[in-house]
Amino acid sequence: MDTLKVDLGNDLSYNVHIGELGNIDFSNRKVAIITNPKVCGLHITKLTNKLKASDVFIISIKDGEQYKNIDTVNEILNNLFNHKLDRKSVLISLGGGVVGDICGFVAGIYQRGIDFINIPTTLLSQVDASVGGKTGINNSYGKNLIGLFNQPKAVHIDTIFLSTLASREYNAGMAEIIKMAVAFDLEFFNWLQSNTINNDENLKKAIKKSIELKIKIVQEDEKEMGVRAKLNYGHTFCHIVEMMSNYTTYLHGEAVSIGIIMANTLALDIGLITQNEFNQILSLLKMYDLPTKYYIKDIDSFYDKFFLDKKSMQGKISFILPINIGNSTIKDDITKQQIQKSLLRYNDYANNIN
Amino acid sequence: MDTLKVDLGNDLSYNVHIGELGNIDFSNRKVAIITNPKVCGLHITKLTNKLKASDVFIISIKDGEQYKNIDTVNEILNNLFNHKLDRKSVLISLGGGVVGDICGFVAGIYQRGIDFINIPTTLLSQVDASVGGKTGINNSYGKNLIGLFNQPKAVHIDTIFLSTLASREYNAGMAEIIKMAVAFDLEFFNWLQSNTINNDENLKKAIKKSIELKIKIVQEDEKEMGVRAKLNYGHTFCHIVEMMSNYTTYLHGEAVSIGIIMANTLALDIGLITQNEFNQILSLLKMYDLPTKYYIKDIDSFYDKFFLDKKSMQGKISFILPINIGNSTIKDDITKQQIQKSLLRYNDYANNIN
Repeated sequence: MDTLKVDLGNDLSYNVHIGELGNIDFSNRKVAIITNPKVCGLHITKLTNKLKASDVFIISIKDGEQYKNIDTVNEILNNLFNHKLDRKSVLISLGGGVVGDICGFVAGIYQRGIDFINIPTTLLSQVDASVGGKTGINNSYGKNLIGLFNQPKAVHIDTIFLSTLASREYNAGMAEIIKMAVAFDLEFFNWLQSNTINNDENLKKAIKKSIELKIKIVQEDEKEMGVRAKLNYGHTFCHIVEMMSNYTTYLHGEAVSIGIIMANTLALDIGLITQNEFNQILSLLKMYDLPTKYYIKDIDSFYDKFFLDKKSMQGKISFILPINIGNSTIKDDITKQQIQKSLLRYNDYANNIN
Repeated sequence: MDTLKVDLGNDLSYNVHIGELGNIDFSNRKVAIITNPKVCGLHITKLTNKLKASDVFIISIKDGEQYKNIDTVNEILNNLFNHKLDRKSVLISLGGGVVGDICGFVAGIYQRGIDFINIPTTLLSQVDASVGGKTGINNSYGKNLIGLFNQPKAVHIDTIFLSTLASREYNAGMAEIIKMAVAFDLEFFNWLQSNTINNDENLKKAIKKSIELKIKIVQEDEKEMGVRAKLNYGHTFCHIVEMMSNYTTYLHGEAVSIGIIMANTLALDIGLITQNEFNQILSLLKMYDLPTKYYIKDIDSFYDKFFLDKKSMQGKISFILPINIGNSTIKDDITKQQIQKSLLRYNDYANNIN
């Protein structure tokens, strides 16, 4: 068992446990497990066998990014009130990023805040979403536009949950791992190029490395006043792709992969990365069968949506772009002309059948 | 101008300014003012004349506790997205407790949190709701059951706004002032008995004293782990009365007045206050024409609703009860039999036409 501490310098600090799920003791407290039907069917007993609580309720929500909305929040809240959960009660998220994001948000607003812990069951949520306290939901204006910074009390990461993952979901998780390597760690990127993550040892190593990188950033800038925005590399584009496809076409990690190549096209155009680096990153995404092509039908409308991004402030759009590989920067001074030119260049790529 | 600091020991600390509204400088930031039609008509120019911002939008919501709900939250959020407010934008609440509670909640969840300040325009919100960071909305399960602890960046209290207040609203504010005196400060209670708050000097003195008492408690226990619950004296009952009358019959302060007498009946029955103290508190509430009688039609159903109170935990109901005058306690060990007996005794009082 590896234990990594997210040290926020106050009583909101917590541990991320990587290894076989141990006993979880909430004696004398009510617990509601937020999950979805598929994860519930596959894994709920793994959790309930380890869980001690005065009462345990299971709230199963519809699976999919399109249900990460206010209606599902209301549905969960009503369930919690019906089960008379109180301020000492605890929520547990058992599922992927959707379940985790919505569980953390509900825990933050139920009776002005109750405790929650995350047990992520997808690779994507294990390496990224479950750590760092970003919670939230989507609305018609965009992704994660309503939410809270709300830290869990603990995160438990057990790769046993990944054994039932479809390869498409598995690959989607790889996109966030690759994102982390490109933005922050050349050595990790090189390792990913020469190692496939198809055995438990390599898998654990990649998960642990990604979480370590994420923790470092979150500790430095919990509320995303600066450097934390770099974790959003690829996401400025990704969120628009997800919204324009109604959150139904791509898994989040797949849209991240598309977003990375969109960002990289811009980075290449303004000289932050070389064509060789562009190709290396593309190859690594393709190694995991990740999509990278999304034809932008209306460049103007796509451009306008950047202003709804949470990083856009005072009329300026911020992009997170790689500097070579292993480094990244926040740019808010790229002209509209340059951005649109790069989107057109990306479209050329997306149109190319090779 | 008096400035009181709410010192939370971290960067969430803020000032409460009591006196004529001064300049408010948010240069280069967008500001949305959350208000209601009546307050907007009477007072908006007092604020906009003092306000410097890159853009100012006014969002006017329906007036009344029954609109402090998720639908109004969504309406405001959509407005903010339409106006493209960003993370550096600011919300200003200009209104009473409803406007303030909902504004603070929306500010907390919009793009994972933006700044807000409170400019309370009712006596009730000036002496209580605008300070301390409790924000939230009601749902069908009860009052303020969804919300956040979210501190404003500043509170501006100017009694000029009270000059247009209907006497009924004015008196409702007195209920919270009286609550504060009974629960925490005998000297203040004695002063209230011998001074009417019908001149600006006494009014300011009562407001300042109430805020000072509140700040002291909030500094000690921001998240209501203990002593802060005492600010809820009268409110355990009050919230049920408000919910059972669909938030339409009583102003919040009027329901507080009823709740105080319900709590005091219980306190009298178990020997925490004397009949003389009961009568003194009752007389002070009556001095401001506050209602104190509400006939409970179904004692069992009223009793069951205590379990939805946020202070109820692990199956135990908590009551805040006065100890004599100027002191109070949190009791969670009163038997169901005793509680129901006191509710019946209260009904005898409520039935009595005197």
